[in-house]
Amino acid sequence: MFRTHTCGELRLSNQNENVTLAGWVQTIRDKGSILWIDLRDRYGITQITLVENKTPAELFETARSLGREFVIQVSGKVAERESKNPKLPTGEIEVWAEKIAILNPAEVPPFKIEDETDGGDDLRMKFRYLDLRRNIVRKNLELRHKMAQETRKYLDSQYFIEVETPVLIKSTPEGARDFVVPSRMNQGQFYALPQSPQTFKQLLMVAGFDRYYQIVKCFRDEDLRADRQPEFTQIDCEMSFVEQEDVLQMFEGLIRHLFRSVKGIEIPTLPRMSYEEAMRLYGSDKPDTRFEMKFTEITHLAKGKGFQVFDNAEIVVGICAKGCAEYTRKQLDELTEFVKKPQIGAKGLVYVQCKADGSFKSSVDKFYTQDDLRTWAEAMQAQAGDLLLILSGETAKTRKQLSELRLEMGTRLGLRDKNKFSCLWVIDFPAFEYDEEAGRWFAMHHPFTSPKPEDITFLQNGELGKVRANAYDMVINGTEVGGGSIRIFDKNLQAKMFEVLGFTAEQAEKQFGFLMNAFRYGAPPHGGIAFGFDRLCAIFSGADSIRDFIAFPKNNSGRDVMIDAPSEIFQEQLEELGIRLVKNKQL
Amino acid sequence: MFRTHTCGELRLSNQNENVTLAGWVQTIRDKGSILWIDLRDRYGITQITLVENKTPAELFETARSLGREFVIQVSGKVAERESKNPKLPTGEIEVWAEKIAILNPAEVPPFKIEDETDGGDDLRMKFRYLDLRRNIVRKNLELRHKMAQETRKYLDSQYFIEVETPVLIKSTPEGARDFVVPSRMNQGQFYALPQSPQTFKQLLMVAGFDRYYQIVKCFRDEDLRADRQPEFTQIDCEMSFVEQEDVLQMFEGLIRHLFRSVKGIEIPTLPRMSYEEAMRLYGSDKPDTRFEMKFTEITHLAKGKGFQVFDNAEIVVGICAKGCAEYTRKQLDELTEFVKKPQIGAKGLVYVQCKADGSFKSSVDKFYTQDDLRTWAEAMQAQAGDLLLILSGETAKTRKQLSELRLEMGTRLGLRDKNKFSCLWVIDFPAFEYDEEAGRWFAMHHPFTSPKPEDITFLQNGELGKVRANAYDMVINGTEVGGGSIRIFDKNLQAKMFEVLGFTAEQAEKQFGFLMNAFRYGAPPHGGIAFGFDRLCAIFSGADSIRDFIAFPKNNSGRDVMIDAPSEIFQEQLEELGIRLVKNKQL
Repeated sequence: MFRTHTCGELRLSNQNENVTLAGWVQTIRDKGSILWIDLRDRYGITQITLVENKTPAELFETARSLGREFVIQVSGKVAERESKNPKLPTGEIEVWAEKIAILNPAEVPPFKIEDETDGGDDLRMKFRYLDLRRNIVRKNLELRHKMAQETRKYLDSQYFIEVETPVLIKSTPEGARDFVVPSRMNQGQFYALPQSPQTFKQLLMVAGFDRYYQIVKCFRDEDLRADRQPEFTQIDCEMSFVEQEDVLQMFEGLIRHLFRSVKGIEIPTLPRMSYEEAMRLYGSDKPDTRFEMKFTEITHLAKGKGFQVFDNAEIVVGICAKGCAEYTRKQLDELTEFVKKPQIGAKGLVYVQCKADGSFKSSVDKFYTQDDLRTWAEAMQAQAGDLLLILSGETAKTRKQLSELRLEMGTRLGLRDKNKFSCLWVIDFPAFEYDEEAGRWFAMHHPFTSPKPEDITFLQNGELGKVRANAYDMVINGTEVGGGSIRIFDKNLQAKMFEVLGFTAEQAEKQFGFLMNAFRYGAPPHGGIAFGFDRLCAIFSGADSIRDFIAFPKNNSGRDVMIDAPSEIFQEQLEELGIRLVKNKQL
Repeated sequence: MFRTHTCGELRLSNQNENVTLAGWVQTIRDKGSILWIDLRDRYGITQITLVENKTPAELFETARSLGREFVIQVSGKVAERESKNPKLPTGEIEVWAEKIAILNPAEVPPFKIEDETDGGDDLRMKFRYLDLRRNIVRKNLELRHKMAQETRKYLDSQYFIEVETPVLIKSTPEGARDFVVPSRMNQGQFYALPQSPQTFKQLLMVAGFDRYYQIVKCFRDEDLRADRQPEFTQIDCEMSFVEQEDVLQMFEGLIRHLFRSVKGIEIPTLPRMSYEEAMRLYGSDKPDTRFEMKFTEITHLAKGKGFQVFDNAEIVVGICAKGCAEYTRKQLDELTEFVKKPQIGAKGLVYVQCKADGSFKSSVDKFYTQDDLRTWAEAMQAQAGDLLLILSGETAKTRKQLSELRLEMGTRLGLRDKNKFSCLWVIDFPAFEYDEEAGRWFAMHHPFTSPKPEDITFLQNGELGKVRANAYDMVINGTEVGGGSIRIFDKNLQAKMFEVLGFTAEQAEKQFGFLMNAFRYGAPPHGGIAFGFDRLCAIFSGADSIRDFIAFPKNNSGRDVMIDAPSEIFQEQLEELGIRLVKNKQL
């Protein structure tokens, strides 16, 4: 046996016991006549002590040959410490070493294995197994484990059963790009890796499984933005004989259970906000509701006073930043620069400072009287000391720009506390969105989402923009953590859906024939939801990036730099698969 | 709300309640003045009753328009049944229909949705979502869910943490064929799908995770034998600071927990058998120990009496089939035919019937006296009434042949009861096996398995056949359900291992450099195990095939015939990936 206890286990009650520990050398402090080793494992740190004249001399020699991250085994007696460390659970004791064995030496690690490390991102990714030794990173993965456990516990208690769906499936043209897998046994054909188990979970409903879930890897071959990964994990769920209300209740229950069991937090009932309202009040379908600062439209108040910019705008809309009236010229310029950044794209920013004396100072003073500005301030429920920030232009774009500015102001004002959680449902999404570039309609959620019954006439008429869907997103702190819908379960409606999305009957049959076929044999009403598990873990931890919640993530080029994947394969492998590389002539 | 109760929920205590159920029409019995519908969902069956003069007439009309597998919603009052059905949990009540809504009609399914179905394999695979409706198939997947739940419960209680390892990894030449995934962002390069998370779990040990597990999909692109799947699931585990004994104890605990919690069975302590002993006594490294019938070698007794076949054999070995002395000529011929089948490959079978009167009758009577045969019978502990079955030839082949014959006899004698479970550990496996065809040594388990310390000199000398490994398999009822080993954690020993396996230093570095590198920074002693989860579920259920424990399995050509995958992809997809198909000229 390598150890009798872990490094996080010994207490004063173990005094005088003979124990054996094993772990990594965190630090060595050598005072000549006395030497301490901090021995670390996943469970904690225990102080090992060597004292001149009490500890065999050769142990000092061994101890002095140790370096950081050596793996050692220590036997000795548990003793009460003279100077206790109340910060450590093991801080009341130390182990008086009687035997030290070096299990494996270690070279000096390329960066410090501490919470505050000196290693850069690239180095830490290359030596991920060392980065994972850091408490802070390991704790993220322990949180993830706990989240998965508690998710399963809740869903099991609600009679969901976990079913594994296949990873080698069929490529479909809709949605993001598939990763494909050439088949050796069926040369010239390919499997695809699933972007989600969507159709399989619907088939499980047709199969009568009633309540399904799976914590499952999904795959998207997209150009990786800052915080995307080519493989990611979903909590994927589906229920039969449900309406939207049933699904919202069930998964509000899940998120409440997770906050309670993982964070010890009771969250209030989730407010529900329509997509229309979210866009109107926050300019976003995933509003950060940790703070108010809602939009106020002042189009009718601002037009007709000779200020061309507003006069020509479809919308004039602003936010009220509490207590910011005294922003300096420099601060105001920064905000203007912010909204003019290419990724935001506003032409300019109008501000109104509501002075302490009741007067107003604005960047458009030559067009508007004090009375004009007072009507704006009143509409925006501003008080003396507040700052109004106003954008104008085409409705959708302007709202999006103001949403960014709102978030920026929230950050500047410290209103986006990572330890505070504000959850809500956004509902009544449009069923379709028009892609100007592609010149066609796409399903906003996916082609299996049912339209609201009252909007089906719009679907029949081809007024796709007016069709709302039985779709819903769960939003926490301005991030969409999950989304789902009530599905179509009628084969004719599903066929109609594919038709308006531009599929020919043949294409629909070829790609999704199996699903529409399944609907012929008694499909129950059903709906579900999928949560982005990596993201959910990051939010629970108050972190920005999902990368530190994935044990072995890939970088922005989709590479695993630790194992050096992807990599070239052997010519024989290509031949067996019946494929050939097209050499890039520019190389 | 679609339902107030499920179809498995109502009892006599619900009498007179107004309820709403939803589900599938299992059967309709129409007696004219009274009509019953058996309504089915995942949870059970409830009898819906319509009675003339009590039920509104139009409900009869609706009910008579229903067909098998229609999805309906029924509201009504719970009443006590006149003729109760004690076989059904809901058998004491029925629901007097007051309202019936057809939620979705159904075409006549292509086969019966019953335990005994009339659908052939191919048809049931194509309509898998209907096959899954059958109780018998759904129960398999419910068992699987329960097995996964209980596995997690046990491992969680032992401080294991579940960590997800990547699916897009690096192709390695050792082992079975990899499925590969062409990279779009890194054209000309490929990811591979993991055959197991072996190196990642070892890196997690280097990272100090101490106890890891994962229920995880793995992939092998092999020609599919009868009961293999290209994607399969493992319970993958690894522990640090352990010796073989620690691992065996821990996972004996897991299997005991599973038998107890899933089957209600207390299994005895698992016997341990060395590989050498298993081969000697059962001719197999996965002996079916539900029955004895061990091998007895009678080489020394059988040689030198002029029977050329035995005289020229390396080994003469037999089994004693209790009570089979009176096998007919036809039965004995069948056994001879059996061992001569090409896949078994014996040249012939020698038998000795131990007659009730103490005499012997054998197929080699002209070479052996009654006394000769008596020495055989005594060696094999045979009694009057028993039948000795004897094979001879080259040791390894003969043992293998006799193993097949032993299993055949076990089956014929009804000794392989699927509801009886016999578990054991097979230990002390050889580290290497020689592949005559390839003309080289391969790692029997894998190249990361540590040799037994006392056999390391053989490794240094190149006497690879003598090196035993710290490797172990768990065997249940003649099937290997799990296997593992204590790993190498010393970089020099690992390098030596790659060397004797024929890797050049460059190849080893290129393929496994990251692992050997990791060993430089303080790798702890570690070891682990992986269980074949699909197989384990099948064995627990007493089933032969894993296919019915996988929701959406593939056929023997690796195809999913339901969704029709793999399939062709678009030319643009190929171009984006920088690959081209090599057309098969024979087509």
